[in-house]
Amino acid sequence: MYRTHNNGSLRAADVNKEVTLAGWVQKSRDKGFIIWVDLRDRYGMTQLVFDQERTDAALMEEARKLGREFVIQVTGTVVERDSKNPNIATGDIELLVSKLEILNASLTPPFTIEDETDGGEDLRMKYRYLDIRRKPVRESLIFRHRVALEVRKYLSEQDFIEVETPYLIKSTPEGARDFVVPSRMNEGQFYALPQSPQTFKQLLMVGGMDKYFQIVKCFRDEDLRADRQPEFTQIDCEMAFVEQEDILNIFEGLTRHLLKEVNGVEIEKFPRMLYDDAMRLYGNDKPDIRFGMKFGELNEVAQHKDFGVFNNAELVVGIAVPGGNSYTRKEIDKIIEWVKRPQVGALGMVYSRCNDDGSFKSSVDKFYDQEDLAKWAEVTGAQKGDLVCILSGETNKVRAQMSALRMELAERLGLRKPDEFAPLWVIDFPLLELDEETGHYHAMHHPFTSPKPGQIELLDTKPGEVKANAYDLVLNGNEIGGGSIRIHDKETQAIMLRHLGFSEEEAKAQFGFLMDAFEYGAPPHGGLAFGLDRLVAILGGQETIRDFIAFPKNNSGRDVMIDAPAPLDNEQLQELNLKLRG
Amino acid sequence: MYRTHNNGSLRAADVNKEVTLAGWVQKSRDKGFIIWVDLRDRYGMTQLVFDQERTDAALMEEARKLGREFVIQVTGTVVERDSKNPNIATGDIELLVSKLEILNASLTPPFTIEDETDGGEDLRMKYRYLDIRRKPVRESLIFRHRVALEVRKYLSEQDFIEVETPYLIKSTPEGARDFVVPSRMNEGQFYALPQSPQTFKQLLMVGGMDKYFQIVKCFRDEDLRADRQPEFTQIDCEMAFVEQEDILNIFEGLTRHLLKEVNGVEIEKFPRMLYDDAMRLYGNDKPDIRFGMKFGELNEVAQHKDFGVFNNAELVVGIAVPGGNSYTRKEIDKIIEWVKRPQVGALGMVYSRCNDDGSFKSSVDKFYDQEDLAKWAEVTGAQKGDLVCILSGETNKVRAQMSALRMELAERLGLRKPDEFAPLWVIDFPLLELDEETGHYHAMHHPFTSPKPGQIELLDTKPGEVKANAYDLVLNGNEIGGGSIRIHDKETQAIMLRHLGFSEEEAKAQFGFLMDAFEYGAPPHGGLAFGLDRLVAILGGQETIRDFIAFPKNNSGRDVMIDAPAPLDNEQLQELNLKLRG
Repeated sequence: MYRTHNNGSLRAADVNKEVTLAGWVQKSRDKGFIIWVDLRDRYGMTQLVFDQERTDAALMEEARKLGREFVIQVTGTVVERDSKNPNIATGDIELLVSKLEILNASLTPPFTIEDETDGGEDLRMKYRYLDIRRKPVRESLIFRHRVALEVRKYLSEQDFIEVETPYLIKSTPEGARDFVVPSRMNEGQFYALPQSPQTFKQLLMVGGMDKYFQIVKCFRDEDLRADRQPEFTQIDCEMAFVEQEDILNIFEGLTRHLLKEVNGVEIEKFPRMLYDDAMRLYGNDKPDIRFGMKFGELNEVAQHKDFGVFNNAELVVGIAVPGGNSYTRKEIDKIIEWVKRPQVGALGMVYSRCNDDGSFKSSVDKFYDQEDLAKWAEVTGAQKGDLVCILSGETNKVRAQMSALRMELAERLGLRKPDEFAPLWVIDFPLLELDEETGHYHAMHHPFTSPKPGQIELLDTKPGEVKANAYDLVLNGNEIGGGSIRIHDKETQAIMLRHLGFSEEEAKAQFGFLMDAFEYGAPPHGGLAFGLDRLVAILGGQETIRDFIAFPKNNSGRDVMIDAPAPLDNEQLQELNLKLRG
Repeated sequence: MYRTHNNGSLRAADVNKEVTLAGWVQKSRDKGFIIWVDLRDRYGMTQLVFDQERTDAALMEEARKLGREFVIQVTGTVVERDSKNPNIATGDIELLVSKLEILNASLTPPFTIEDETDGGEDLRMKYRYLDIRRKPVRESLIFRHRVALEVRKYLSEQDFIEVETPYLIKSTPEGARDFVVPSRMNEGQFYALPQSPQTFKQLLMVGGMDKYFQIVKCFRDEDLRADRQPEFTQIDCEMAFVEQEDILNIFEGLTRHLLKEVNGVEIEKFPRMLYDDAMRLYGNDKPDIRFGMKFGELNEVAQHKDFGVFNNAELVVGIAVPGGNSYTRKEIDKIIEWVKRPQVGALGMVYSRCNDDGSFKSSVDKFYDQEDLAKWAEVTGAQKGDLVCILSGETNKVRAQMSALRMELAERLGLRKPDEFAPLWVIDFPLLELDEETGHYHAMHHPFTSPKPGQIELLDTKPGEVKANAYDLVLNGNEIGGGSIRIHDKETQAIMLRHLGFSEEEAKAQFGFLMDAFEYGAPPHGGLAFGLDRLVAILGGQETIRDFIAFPKNNSGRDVMIDAPAPLDNEQLQELNLKLRG
């Protein structure tokens, strides 16, 4: 046995006990007559002491050789500390060492193993195993474990069954590019990796599993230069004999449970918002509702004056920035510069100051009088002391621009608090989405999403207006989950695929297995999938999900942990395999 | 809401309640004036009743249209049954239906959805979603879920952290062939799928995670004609600062917990057996110890007579078959035929009957007298009424043959009881294994397994004799888990790789990342991996693991669920993806 206790467990009550500890040398302070060593493991830190009165000389010498990150085993007696450290759990005691063994030496680590490290991103990624020794990274991985375990416990208590579905499957494209996997032992055969277990979970519903979930890896062959992971983890769920309402209730329950268990936050009923309202009021299908600054549409009150920019715009929209009248001219100019950055793309911004005396001062006073500006304030909900910011142009573009501005200003105002949680259901998504480049419609969610009852006829005439039984769960401005009620009859599925541009033959070849299954008593069903890492990151109060992944890839797509000089080709791999097999 | 109750929940106490149910039509009995329909879902079965006194005529007509596996929703009143059925939980009541809706019709299923079905294996695999509706298959999937959940709960309570490791990695071959995954979005780059997270979990130990586990898919590109799955699920575990003893105790605890929780069986301390003893006494490194029939080595007492077959054999070995003296000559001839089958490969079998009067009658009485035969009985532990069966030849071969015979006879004698559990640790495995075809040694476990202390010097002189810190957990004659204490220093790892035939350069290229990590304070560590599905199958009392997998592959390797006519090539896939993306 390497240890009797871990480094977070000893207390004043253990004084005089003889114990054995093991762990890493965090740091060492050598005062000559006394040496203190901080010994670290996952559970905490214990102070070791060697002093010339109580420790024999040879052992003192041994202790002097210890470098940072050495792995050691020590035996000794727990003693009370002279000066206690209330900041750590073991701060009342120290270990007077009588025996020391170096289990493994360490080179000097390339960055400090501290909460705040001096190592840059690339270095920490290269030596991820050292980065993981740092408390914030370690705690993030443990936090992720806790969330995943709570999800499993909760759903299991609700009668959900976790069923593993295969990873090496026939391709069932779902909108992104499949990874394909050639089998070298079975020439000419190859598999695809699933983009999600979507069709499998639907078949499980046809098979009567009733309530299914799985925490499962999904794969998409996407451009690695974009900030996307080729593999990501999903909490994948499906239920039979449900309507949208049932699904929202169950997964609202799950999310509420997680907020309570892991964050200690109790949240009542989650609000719901129509997709159309989300776009109109926030310019965004995943609005952050921790703060206000809702959009006010100003066409009626700002058009038909002599200001051509507004008159020619499809949409004129404003937001009230709380306290924004305090911005200097220079600060406002910076905001205007910000919205004109290519990433945002606005051509300019109009603003109106709401003065404390009730008067207004706008950047377009030439065209608008005080009464006009009062209406702008009314529509945007601006109060005295606020600043109304206005963008105009083509509806979709201006909404996206204003949404970006709203988030940016909220960030600057400190309104996006990581420890505040504002969940929201966005419902009634459109079934189809127009690709402006190709002029074709494609499924906004996926081809298995059902249109709202009675709307299927609209597919021929007004495809863009058809609403789906689709919903997203939004948390603090992030989509953490999304799902839909599925099509469960062959005929509707065939109509849907026809509208997505599949010939009857193609539909049969690709989705025949599912449509055939629908002919043998498929129950109504629907589901939802959460992005586990995004959920964990938001619950953990972090913007980035990187820390919650054991071995993240860097942007070049190379797995930084296993840094072989170059990928091997098949022949090399085969050779290596043969060698290992003897 | 589609239902107020499920089909397993209504009881006598619910009589007179109005409820709504949904599910599948199991069967329908039409007596003209009365129609009974059995309604099924995952939770059970409820009897519906329509009768001409209480049900209106139109509804009676509707009920007559219901076919097997139709999906329906019914509303009605719970009434007491005239003749109760004590065999099902809802047997006291039936539902007098007042409203019926057909949610989906069904074609006639290709096989009966009953516990005992008329469908053959191929048909059930083709329509796996119908097979899953059958109770035994459904219950197996639910059982697997329960086992996996218990594993997670138990290990989490023991401070293990489940950490997800990546699936798209750089190749780290471990003895089988890697699947490789070309990235089409990043030309020239490709990944490998992990054969296990072995190196990742070791890096997590270097990273101080202390106790790791993961229920994780592993991939091996193996010949599909053999009965192997290209993907399989592992309970993967690793611990730092442990010796073999610690690991055996923890995972004995896990296994004991599972046996208790899911099987209601309490088992004390698991026995331990040296690998060498397992081979000597059972001819096998995973002996089934639910029954005796241990090997008795007979060289001393059977050689040096005039029987050349034995005299020329490296090993003469016998087992005592309990009650085997009752076999007729014909039955014994059949056993001899069985051992001579090419799959077993013995050239013949000698036997000796142990008569009730204490005398013996052997098939080689010409060469051996009663005293000789008495010694055979003594060495094999045969009692009056038993049959001693003896094989001879080259040690390794004859052990394998006798092991096969032992298992076969135990099976025939009903000694391999599925509800009896006999776990066993087999320890002190050899480090290396000789490949008789190539004459090379390769790692018996994997290249990261540490030799026993002090034995590393033997690698040069007697490589086959070096024992490893490696252990297997055996349950009822199946290896359900295996692991080892790992090498945790660069030097030992380098020596090991050199003995496996790697040049210094090759070792650095392939395993440099791990050996480099060992230089930054790697703790002593070790672990174990369970084959989840084999474990689940044995706990579930089944020989086959197929039923516990949602969508098993058939032997041709085709995923039978998604039966597209032919795999698509890259170009076709790309085209399809583009279409779905609009």
